[in-house]
Amino acid sequence: MASIAESMELIKRGADEILLEESLLKKLERGKPLKIKAGFDPTAPDLHLGHTVLINKLRQFQDLGHEVTFLIGDFTGMIGDPTGKNVTRKPLTREDVLKNAETYQEQIFKILDREKTIIRFNSEWMEEIGAAGLIQLAAKHTVARMLERDDFNKRYKNGQPIAIHEFLYPLVQGYDSVALQSDVELGGTDQKFNLLVGRQLQEVYGQEPQVVLTMPILEGLDGVQKMSKSLGNYIGIADQPDDMFGKIMSISDELMWRYYELLSFKSMSDINALRRQVEEGMNPRDAKVLLAEELIERFHDKAAAIKSHENFVARFQKGAMPDEMPEFALEAGEGFSIANLLKEAGLVSSTSEALRMIKQGAVKIDGEKIEDRNLVLSKGSVHIYQVGKRRFAKVTLT
Amino acid sequence: MASIAESMELIKRGADEILLEESLLKKLERGKPLKIKAGFDPTAPDLHLGHTVLINKLRQFQDLGHEVTFLIGDFTGMIGDPTGKNVTRKPLTREDVLKNAETYQEQIFKILDREKTIIRFNSEWMEEIGAAGLIQLAAKHTVARMLERDDFNKRYKNGQPIAIHEFLYPLVQGYDSVALQSDVELGGTDQKFNLLVGRQLQEVYGQEPQVVLTMPILEGLDGVQKMSKSLGNYIGIADQPDDMFGKIMSISDELMWRYYELLSFKSMSDINALRRQVEEGMNPRDAKVLLAEELIERFHDKAAAIKSHENFVARFQKGAMPDEMPEFALEAGEGFSIANLLKEAGLVSSTSEALRMIKQGAVKIDGEKIEDRNLVLSKGSVHIYQVGKRRFAKVTLT
Repeated sequence: MASIAESMELIKRGADEILLEESLLKKLERGKPLKIKAGFDPTAPDLHLGHTVLINKLRQFQDLGHEVTFLIGDFTGMIGDPTGKNVTRKPLTREDVLKNAETYQEQIFKILDREKTIIRFNSEWMEEIGAAGLIQLAAKHTVARMLERDDFNKRYKNGQPIAIHEFLYPLVQGYDSVALQSDVELGGTDQKFNLLVGRQLQEVYGQEPQVVLTMPILEGLDGVQKMSKSLGNYIGIADQPDDMFGKIMSISDELMWRYYELLSFKSMSDINALRRQVEEGMNPRDAKVLLAEELIERFHDKAAAIKSHENFVARFQKGAMPDEMPEFALEAGEGFSIANLLKEAGLVSSTSEALRMIKQGAVKIDGEKIEDRNLVLSKGSVHIYQVGKRRFAKVTLT
Repeated sequence: MASIAESMELIKRGADEILLEESLLKKLERGKPLKIKAGFDPTAPDLHLGHTVLINKLRQFQDLGHEVTFLIGDFTGMIGDPTGKNVTRKPLTREDVLKNAETYQEQIFKILDREKTIIRFNSEWMEEIGAAGLIQLAAKHTVARMLERDDFNKRYKNGQPIAIHEFLYPLVQGYDSVALQSDVELGGTDQKFNLLVGRQLQEVYGQEPQVVLTMPILEGLDGVQKMSKSLGNYIGIADQPDDMFGKIMSISDELMWRYYELLSFKSMSDINALRRQVEEGMNPRDAKVLLAEELIERFHDKAAAIKSHENFVARFQKGAMPDEMPEFALEAGEGFSIANLLKEAGLVSSTSEALRMIKQGAVKIDGEKIEDRNLVLSKGSVHIYQVGKRRFAKVTLT
């Protein structure tokens, strides 16, 4: 069993904010397992590493002996988008929800301990309380306090509509904490307001308010924007080992240390030791390899980690990829093709040269030969482009 | 069957506003009975004449052949006051609601036709839709539009809290119109915003929006403030015939014509004819007697109306109450006693004279001898005070 000081250190690792730290201490000092809650949207069970930041923190709480509840917010998911504005967001059926929950579990149990994780659905209590219960819940919070939330405030001031049900969602989320009697709720920094509503509602319902722990939003491969599917700068946890390896090798050294803190299960003292080694001359590429291997082992297995490393070496290092190469960020307009990119990056002198080189099989992306001269690159992607044997550039599309 | 022009004339009688008049015309032109809705709070079934203004309008719709629904808002009543601020407003049980509904019916069927009136409870559909249905309902309206309501706007600007459930009540009321598919909803002028929410929701749910008809708030006996129990300036429909008679005789001539328009079932042409008679010399007191008799007959019976008139004559007219007497409005402070009042009104020269006169049995209120020297008069009351045989004054306490 970890000491309280050790617990606090692990809990604080990478965290953005803990409200209130003294309450957390008090709860820990009782020496009983705490109820840890994190809520997830049932509509998007396809996780990338950005999502795992929170799940890793849940895992740390499990390692410290606490009780983790993975809460699936199916109640609102089954309502769908009630504004009707977003036609693509149809209400989920109970079967959809259960299927998505299944997909979640396949993914999260690569991180969490299956035996120690409680899965709950908030429809359990929300269908129970009915319209009358929801009105009583709504009586516990004021319009003015809700309008203090940053995004609501901006929209209200700018005359952009806020539908009234949007005021109910934070209350439902807060009531989940009441129903679960949670001691600690985890969420992204963008969730802080909603997490605090949970604290407030617990007090109203006579419970000790939960501690709110926010985790930062993980930056994507570009190191600037948040990791997101739509920006194309993500590593999916279902990505193939070779893709994961290549993507991790493409990140900057600075971002690597960020990923170590938020994604690695190595202790901070091990990570700091590694950092010192790099400062003393170790090639940072080798530290990246270690990170890539750890993550691939987590989401696939040890053999896949070793194999993807070997493949990477075969593609790049035997192909004499230099340690240093020019790095660019290019702005990708509509239909920005591979030929444009090679020209903008200075790897060829004209798009016609680019097309000729592609035809000759002399153009590679991340060490793989490309054949499609009409290839369009997606925004947010980070790749190493190679023309012939000597010309290299690492390009981020923005 | 009344012509459309006759219908419009009767519907518009005394109405404050009709939104939209052309929609009402269109609905009437179809020649089918319209669904008329008015909602009532199940917590306060003890009606006074102020409440009957709306019920009279329902009666007129019934007389024109339309279908009237008396809607009891039990759903929110059974929630109680969810702010918990008002401890006296406890949630009603289903038995309370049914008992109150019974009391309502005893009263309203003195005005409405029992056979033609549909009684409904909104818990019927509100319990059905559940928390999910309420969220979907809340998605149909925006925060900004809700904050346009006068009272919300003032409170928000003044930093007075508005609990979020207060935004849900107008939506529930509006949804009642959807559930009933109402063609016309009646309410007081203070209900206009909520009634318009009903129009808007019906459109969202693909129904033709209801016509909104607002009735003015009836002035109390003082002719200035709204009739209300707490102000003491009311005539309860369960008041004894003699009390009703005395109270109606105490109102000003101007207020009498207002009451004729809003409370009498005489046609406007009969009322206008009576008005001309008064202008040509008829004693307005005789017109008041006719009004008093009509109302007492409605809430009691013909015999009671005749008897109360006789009692009044016996008390006052045989006691030579003058047609003209001084009228005062006095400001009643805390513990403003009968002795103070008589002195302030100039009927006695000192409070000790007042007490002596009371002891001698020489003081009357509305023709009835009083014995209690500690009598405290309530704010908003209007009475005729008499000391000895010749000293009279009509005093309104403000």
